[in-house]
Amino acid sequence: MNTNGIVSQDKKEYQEKLAIKNRLELYYRFQSTKNGLQNIDRIKSYLPEKYKFMQIRRGVIIAHLDMEPVIEQMALGKEFTVISGLNPSSPLHLGHKALFDILLELQKLGGRIYIPITNDESYVDNKADSLVQSRKIAYEEIIPSIVAFGFKSEKTHIFVDSDYPQIYNFAMYLSKHVTLGELITIFGQNSLLTPGQIFYRGCVQLAQIFLPQLPEFGGPKHTLIPVGIDQHPYVLLARDIARKIKLIPPSEFVFKFLPSLENPQEKMSGSKPETAIYFSDSPREIKRKINSAYTGSVSSLVGHQKFGGVPEICSVFSLLNYLCYEDGVVNDLYKKYIKGKIGARELKNKVYEFTIKLVTPIAKKKREISTIQSKKFILNNNLELFI
Amino acid sequence: MNTNGIVSQDKKEYQEKLAIKNRLELYYRFQSTKNGLQNIDRIKSYLPEKYKFMQIRRGVIIAHLDMEPVIEQMALGKEFTVISGLNPSSPLHLGHKALFDILLELQKLGGRIYIPITNDESYVDNKADSLVQSRKIAYEEIIPSIVAFGFKSEKTHIFVDSDYPQIYNFAMYLSKHVTLGELITIFGQNSLLTPGQIFYRGCVQLAQIFLPQLPEFGGPKHTLIPVGIDQHPYVLLARDIARKIKLIPPSEFVFKFLPSLENPQEKMSGSKPETAIYFSDSPREIKRKINSAYTGSVSSLVGHQKFGGVPEICSVFSLLNYLCYEDGVVNDLYKKYIKGKIGARELKNKVYEFTIKLVTPIAKKKREISTIQSKKFILNNNLELFI
Repeated sequence: MNTNGIVSQDKKEYQEKLAIKNRLELYYRFQSTKNGLQNIDRIKSYLPEKYKFMQIRRGVIIAHLDMEPVIEQMALGKEFTVISGLNPSSPLHLGHKALFDILLELQKLGGRIYIPITNDESYVDNKADSLVQSRKIAYEEIIPSIVAFGFKSEKTHIFVDSDYPQIYNFAMYLSKHVTLGELITIFGQNSLLTPGQIFYRGCVQLAQIFLPQLPEFGGPKHTLIPVGIDQHPYVLLARDIARKIKLIPPSEFVFKFLPSLENPQEKMSGSKPETAIYFSDSPREIKRKINSAYTGSVSSLVGHQKFGGVPEICSVFSLLNYLCYEDGVVNDLYKKYIKGKIGARELKNKVYEFTIKLVTPIAKKKREISTIQSKKFILNNNLELFI
Repeated sequence: MNTNGIVSQDKKEYQEKLAIKNRLELYYRFQSTKNGLQNIDRIKSYLPEKYKFMQIRRGVIIAHLDMEPVIEQMALGKEFTVISGLNPSSPLHLGHKALFDILLELQKLGGRIYIPITNDESYVDNKADSLVQSRKIAYEEIIPSIVAFGFKSEKTHIFVDSDYPQIYNFAMYLSKHVTLGELITIFGQNSLLTPGQIFYRGCVQLAQIFLPQLPEFGGPKHTLIPVGIDQHPYVLLARDIARKIKLIPPSEFVFKFLPSLENPQEKMSGSKPETAIYFSDSPREIKRKINSAYTGSVSSLVGHQKFGGVPEICSVFSLLNYLCYEDGVVNDLYKKYIKGKIGARELKNKVYEFTIKLVTPIAKKKREISTIQSKKFILNNNLELFI
């Protein structure tokens, strides 16, 4: 193959990458205004600077529904409540970190955070072999990691579903306000095959969302659920039911998931180790994963220098975009990469260094978290049967 | 109308009653050998006299499945376990008493009795407005009544579902072994409209049945579930799942429900006060209900004396047949009634006296049962999450 051949090959590759980028942008633009959602841009235009936290600035949060009352709480210096469940089917990875960073930002702005750890969900969806197994992951991996991330114990409330079974009474109460037909419309029949899946999706998840509005936690209040785009119909259901039972419909933030290391069109997933960087990965492992990750540059350096990179679909650049708080660093690399002034190899080295600096201290801190420290975060309010 | 007219009217009425009797007998004969069930007659032929308790002798228990291992336990003087749930949607009536009498007989023969009080079921099936309401009935009406019936506290274990929410963890565990499709086959779509109904019927009820086989209660063991004929398919499901999860498939007794006071083809139902005699009814109320009850005799005394009565479909006679332990009294009245030698009025008076003697002391005793006495019966073992 001659030089022209290489260039035309590069061109083809570059155009393919641009096509992926355009497709993803179109997808998110469409999704972020569908079914009552509002694109984050509108709210950004009037949101005071101090509320435009990193994930809003970077486009990680792409849409919202009914955020106004929550912003009002922030503006009044009043507390608001955030609920964000976690499926304990694998140790934590950077995709989780990206979400927890959003929660940390919200906590700084006055958010009280509830984190249901849904070991029942892991089990009914076959992501864990047993409730015990997913419970073990919850206590040994997830809760100490959450503590290590720096949440404030007095404003962070974690519970593992199977250890807080009173939530099922609330779920039973809610069960009358949903029909199987509605659930099938929202989730599709294939994720409602067993009674456990039906009860989890149709009731337990709603109980988690509404829990902070129970009298034990001060009654009806403004709550916020950060969700991935595919969960939006579910938020609509929750809002409908909230109205029926005289609670305040939860507000919603829609975020993009940190992409897979292998494919910018998929998310980093704990069940596919090659797509993810875990806090338990060794530096060597992290190096290997980053080095073989999908990037936004064409294969030849010459081609990259000629056409430039596509940082928007670069799994390596995304690690910075989702996780690095230094706007200067990220913007600078973005500009250089898009112009082809920094190659994939150099980018990978920089991101590797950033990742190690991020992962190592948290992994160390997590190992040092004691059961006593974790306990401060565990919710154990007795739930009165008021219904 | 002349005398002949009356006689032909009586004859018609008598034949109608015979037709009902024949229809019911045919129905039960057919049902009692369907889907693996065995008619009780076969087991009666070799069952030692001391195990043929009143409800077996009288034909209240009509069929069984796999009773042999339970009988073997009895014969060896060993314990066996009986599970019988109760839906706390109304105060107790004589239909409940008929079932509890079976449990008392089984306790005398070595049975350890578990009584789940399913206030969640009452709620999801709209038989109670709230979990709290059905819970209140459980503690104020049902548990003291059970104590008043004379169960032994050391061999009787009662729990109210919403106060024993750990059972839901076990239900979640079981949820993977049942599909929605199977449930629809067994229960029909109309009783599976909400996620709560699906989870209750598909998981919680199974958790109650298998609870005594958990390690906390000594592990796998022979258990017996007394059920109404319509619940038989459900027992088959429980037996299937027991095999899958390496527990011992429960054995089954099928009993006939005490008939409605108004209609021998329906059961006495707490939600239809005119069909039932409650322990809370006054003597005057009981008198009124018995006097207006459906009987096995034609309308005119002359006709009754000519044709005789049909005790098998007489709601008044049934009270004796299901509840009176004196075989002599019951057999004597049966013979007289079938020959028309005792009229409906006299039968009603006798049954009224019997009923008052049965209800009054239990109602009194129930009022005197203290919370401390009830507490001895309440199950509160912690359930380890072993699954």
